[in-house]
Amino acid sequence: MKVNKMWDKYPELKEDLEGVLQLMDKNIKCKDKRIENSIKELIYSGGKLLRPAFSLISSRFGQYNEEKSRSVAAAIEMLHMATLVHDDVIDDAKTRRGQETLQSKYGKDYAVYIGDYLFCVTFKLLSTHSSSLASIKIDSRAMERICLGEIDQMNSKFLVDTSVKKYLSRIQGKTAELFSLSFYSGASESGCEDKLSKQFWQIGHNIGMAFQIIDDILDYSSEGSILGKPVAADIKQGIFNLPLIYAMEKNKDEFKAILEKEIITDEDVSNIMELVVKYKGVEKAMELAEKYTNKAFKLINKLPENPYKNILLELAEKLLDRNY
Amino acid sequence: MKVNKMWDKYPELKEDLEGVLQLMDKNIKCKDKRIENSIKELIYSGGKLLRPAFSLISSRFGQYNEEKSRSVAAAIEMLHMATLVHDDVIDDAKTRRGQETLQSKYGKDYAVYIGDYLFCVTFKLLSTHSSSLASIKIDSRAMERICLGEIDQMNSKFLVDTSVKKYLSRIQGKTAELFSLSFYSGASESGCEDKLSKQFWQIGHNIGMAFQIIDDILDYSSEGSILGKPVAADIKQGIFNLPLIYAMEKNKDEFKAILEKEIITDEDVSNIMELVVKYKGVEKAMELAEKYTNKAFKLINKLPENPYKNILLELAEKLLDRNY
Repeated sequence: MKVNKMWDKYPELKEDLEGVLQLMDKNIKCKDKRIENSIKELIYSGGKLLRPAFSLISSRFGQYNEEKSRSVAAAIEMLHMATLVHDDVIDDAKTRRGQETLQSKYGKDYAVYIGDYLFCVTFKLLSTHSSSLASIKIDSRAMERICLGEIDQMNSKFLVDTSVKKYLSRIQGKTAELFSLSFYSGASESGCEDKLSKQFWQIGHNIGMAFQIIDDILDYSSEGSILGKPVAADIKQGIFNLPLIYAMEKNKDEFKAILEKEIITDEDVSNIMELVVKYKGVEKAMELAEKYTNKAFKLINKLPENPYKNILLELAEKLLDRNY
Repeated sequence: MKVNKMWDKYPELKEDLEGVLQLMDKNIKCKDKRIENSIKELIYSGGKLLRPAFSLISSRFGQYNEEKSRSVAAAIEMLHMATLVHDDVIDDAKTRRGQETLQSKYGKDYAVYIGDYLFCVTFKLLSTHSSSLASIKIDSRAMERICLGEIDQMNSKFLVDTSVKKYLSRIQGKTAELFSLSFYSGASESGCEDKLSKQFWQIGHNIGMAFQIIDDILDYSSEGSILGKPVAADIKQGIFNLPLIYAMEKNKDEFKAILEKEIITDEDVSNIMELVVKYKGVEKAMELAEKYTNKAFKLINKLPENPYKNILLELAEKLLDRNY
C-alpha cells in the first residue's frame, strides 16, 4: 500500500486511504491483465489523494461508516483518475507522476476506452454504496459541469481577450467542482444535515479555487528549479493563467504583440514573464488567492467541534500556504 | 422531430420516441452553442432508435409511466451516442449517418470530452428518473462490460488465431449488452417482476447477438451494391468476423498466408472473400444467427399477452430476417 507520506501524521486517515486504494484495486477487473496492471500501477503511483481525503474528513462529521465512506472516497478518486487519463490523451502527455501515461504506453485509442471504463467503475462504486438516488444525481451534475469545464478550457485557448471572470469560471470547472463534490459527498452520504453538507461544498469551492490559483502562480515564481518551464508549456499551448491575465489588463497591446505571433519562442516566453513581473501580475493573483484562502479558513472554523476539524485546518494551511 | 419512418406504423411508439428525442435535446446545454448544436444535430440525425424503442416496448409490460419510461429510454440512447462519439475517435471516422462526425468537425480532443459529457448526461437522466439505486447499479455494470468489450475488440485485432468463442464474447460486449440493458431497464423501471425483466434481458441478448452476426454476414453477401467494401475495411483494420472465422477453421494456413502479409491489397481481400465462399463461412454463420433468432422468437412468444408483444414480434422479424 503506497499512500503518500504526507498522511503519516494522521494514522486513522492514512488507514482509511489505504482502504480506499484497496477498494479501487478490487474494483478493477479486465481480461487483459497488462491493462489491468497498468491501471493498478496508476492507483498506487503515490498521488496525494487529496480528494478522497477531503471526502473521508467530511464523512467524520456525520455517522461515519467505514465501508460506505471509503467507497464514496474511492469513487471520487476513480473519477479523478478517469479525467486524468482523458486529459493525458488530449495533452499528448508522456508521463504522469513519474510514470509513463496509459496513452503513451498503449496509444490514444486504448486510453479513451480505459478512461470510459474508469467512469463506469466510478458509477458502479457510487450506485453500490450511495445512500440515495438524490446524491447520485448531485454527483452526475457535478461531473457534467467538470466535462463542460474541460470543453470550455479548450475553447478559451489562444484567446488573448480572456478575462479574470473567464479564468475563474475555467478553474471552477477544472478544479474546484471536484473539490466541492469530494467534501459534499462525504458529508451528505454520512447523513450530515443539508446545511452542513452545503457548508462543506463551499469549503471545497474555496480551497479548490485558492489551490488552483496558487498552482498557477507557482509556475511564475522564482522558486521553481526549472524556472519558466510550466509557464512556457502553458503559453505555447495557449493557456493563459491568472498572473498573465492580470498583467495583460495593464497593457494588452504589449502582450498581444508577442502572444499573437505564429511561433512563440523561449525568448518570447521570458519576455512575457518579465512583463508579468513588471505589471505585478503575480502580486495581484496572490491577493485573490488570499481572499479564497481566508474564506476557506473562515468556513472551516465555523464547523462543529470535531478532531477532524483541526486536521482539515492543518491540511488547508499546508496546501494553501505554499512558498510564494 | 425527425423519427425514422420505420416507426410510422406504430403511432403510440412513434410519439414516445419523439418525446425521447425532445428529452435528450432538453438535457444538452453547453456554453459553446456551436458544440451544443452539433450534439443536437446528432440527436436528430435519423438513427433507427432501436435501443430506446426496445426500452419503451418492455416498459409497456409494467406500469407504464410516460415521463419515467421516456427518460430511461433517453438515457439508453444517450449512452449509445456517447459510445458512438468515442468509437468515431478511435476509428478516425469522417462521417456517421451521413453527417460529418464530431471528431472530424472539432478534432479528437473535443470529441473525447464531448463523449464524456454525454456519459455524464446519461447518468444524470438515470439518477433523476430511476426508481432505485439497484437499477443504476445494474446499468453501470452493463456499461462497464460494454467498455471492457471495446478494449477487448482492440486486443483481438489482427489475431488470426481468434475463435468463434472470442468473436461471440466480443459482439456480446459490443452489441448484445446494450440491447439487453435497453429491454431490461424498460421493464424493471416500470415495475415488472424480476422474472419478467430477466426474460427481457434474454430477449435483448438473443436479438443483439443475431442482429450483429447478420450485420457481419451482410458484409459478405452479394446483395450489397458496394460489394466487399465493409469487409475490406474490417480486414484491413484487423477485425475478423464470423464468416471468416468459420472459414478459417477449415484451412488456417491458406488464410494466414494472406492475412499475415504486411500490406493487404484489394486483391487479397477478394481472394479472402472467395475462400470464405469456398469454405461456406457465410452458411455456417447464418446457421448460428438462426439459432439466436429462434431463441429470441421463442422467448418473445412466451411473454404475457399485450399489444406490444405483436409489435416486438414484427420488429424482430424485420430486424432478423434481412436479405441474406
